[in-house]
Amino acid sequence: MHNPASRKLQIYRLIGKVPTIAAYTYRHSVGFPYVYPDNELNYAENFMSMLWKMTEPKFKANAALARALDILFILHADHEQNCSANVMRAVGSSHADPFVCTAAAAAALSGPLHGGANEEVLKMLDQVGSKDRVPAYVTQVKAGHGKLMGFGHRIYKNYDPRARIIKWAADQVFQVTGKNPKLEIALELERIALDDEYFVSRKLYPNVDFYSGIIYQALGFKPDMFTVLFAIPRTVGWLAQWQEMIEDPEQKIARPRQIYTGYTERNFIPIEKRTERALAAQGGVKP
Amino acid sequence: MHNPASRKLQIYRLIGKVPTIAAYTYRHSVGFPYVYPDNELNYAENFMSMLWKMTEPKFKANAALARALDILFILHADHEQNCSANVMRAVGSSHADPFVCTAAAAAALSGPLHGGANEEVLKMLDQVGSKDRVPAYVTQVKAGHGKLMGFGHRIYKNYDPRARIIKWAADQVFQVTGKNPKLEIALELERIALDDEYFVSRKLYPNVDFYSGIIYQALGFKPDMFTVLFAIPRTVGWLAQWQEMIEDPEQKIARPRQIYTGYTERNFIPIEKRTERALAAQGGVKP
Repeated sequence: MHNPASRKLQIYRLIGKVPTIAAYTYRHSVGFPYVYPDNELNYAENFMSMLWKMTEPKFKANAALARALDILFILHADHEQNCSANVMRAVGSSHADPFVCTAAAAAALSGPLHGGANEEVLKMLDQVGSKDRVPAYVTQVKAGHGKLMGFGHRIYKNYDPRARIIKWAADQVFQVTGKNPKLEIALELERIALDDEYFVSRKLYPNVDFYSGIIYQALGFKPDMFTVLFAIPRTVGWLAQWQEMIEDPEQKIARPRQIYTGYTERNFIPIEKRTERALAAQGGVKP
Repeated sequence: MHNPASRKLQIYRLIGKVPTIAAYTYRHSVGFPYVYPDNELNYAENFMSMLWKMTEPKFKANAALARALDILFILHADHEQNCSANVMRAVGSSHADPFVCTAAAAAALSGPLHGGANEEVLKMLDQVGSKDRVPAYVTQVKAGHGKLMGFGHRIYKNYDPRARIIKWAADQVFQVTGKNPKLEIALELERIALDDEYFVSRKLYPNVDFYSGIIYQALGFKPDMFTVLFAIPRTVGWLAQWQEMIEDPEQKIARPRQIYTGYTERNFIPIEKRTERALAAQGGVKP
């Protein structure tokens, strides 16, 4: 790990293997045989081949879809000190190997507060039910009932610069895949949000998670695959941050300073005598 | 995870399963068949049974060793915001499930800067070679050549309160296992360090890692198993901290604030034209 050449090799391996593992989990989940990586295809095309190749000798990726997927990957590659990047650095700070660091970062991404945002979008579309019920749903949200998932962003208060690019990619995808009822709900929501003064003034523009969710669903993925699709490009960002950290001559093990705010000294009570009452009477003050 | 009863069950499961996995890795590493957990034994005895039971119908743990192991486990159960506890909280903050959180914390523990300290002690003992070479090694260290592993502590500047207890446990173990050449080197080092004015004045007392390393080696473990033995009791502390975090009503996803200190705006250069010279001329200032 302290050898730059070995580091580079491990980084290549991880970036190469993560889409393979992801595609294999997908094929396994639908009961299809695995497809080996094809070295003649580019990154996005190879991933599509591993996902969708059937009995044809060579998978021919749709060029528009491959480009859109590549753009989606680029947009998701890194995003400052989010939860999983921080975990990558925290685990890596003990000089654990990059494979377990990446696994730990992926664990953080699996949490619904982190990687789950685009799944929530799809759940919301299910809740709305059909295109003609969108106005009623929007009225409800304006009245303070329910939440618009995939709109606005905690850091980008005005506009998420990624949203414009991903919207373009989404349009390319929909031209190929055509529309389906869920996509129509999503597009109707988008249309209203970009037009309606209520949403515009509150900066509630559709964000990256909104579009990535509907792109993935247009491509035929189930929501439980979304976070896996997020982990593929984010592996690149995790490894870039890991590399940056390891190369830092001032790098130290991550060990936050703790300030104790619990009880002061308490008397020992044998475990079999620890009743509520005994605990209350044992002394010690909780601030 | 938001249900306290389910949380408790998952915590029980993890605390119960980690020693089983640890013992199985050990049995696998020595080519022995696995031993199922025995519900009639206590925690330490059951672990010993899974490690060492051969064909006898019931494993009889040596009482002194079981008690020593239990003490070792208690001493290692938790230790404030160390690297792996911080990872447990960081991954858990996204509401990932406690199984992947624990795996991520164990990944952090696997790094040589974190869990590897007691392995380093054994490497040092190998380096010293024999008991009669201890004084020469100590003289070397005093002269500034080489390092005494397992002495002193970053946080406990005067004395590690755990060291006194683990030393007692170590003595109990050695009465059962008898001494071996490596242990004699360790005890000679300990004797000198506790006596010699040079070490006493610098607070270089043998710490928990020093004793846990030599206890494990007296019990017959190879150093590559030490971190696994550390992970068993520490699972309890990780889960306690995870539980504390989830129950905190102010809990939020862990996402450190980032302050950008890199280049200012730079011109785009197509990747095939990115020579050293082109990069240097592209504008942008690195502070």
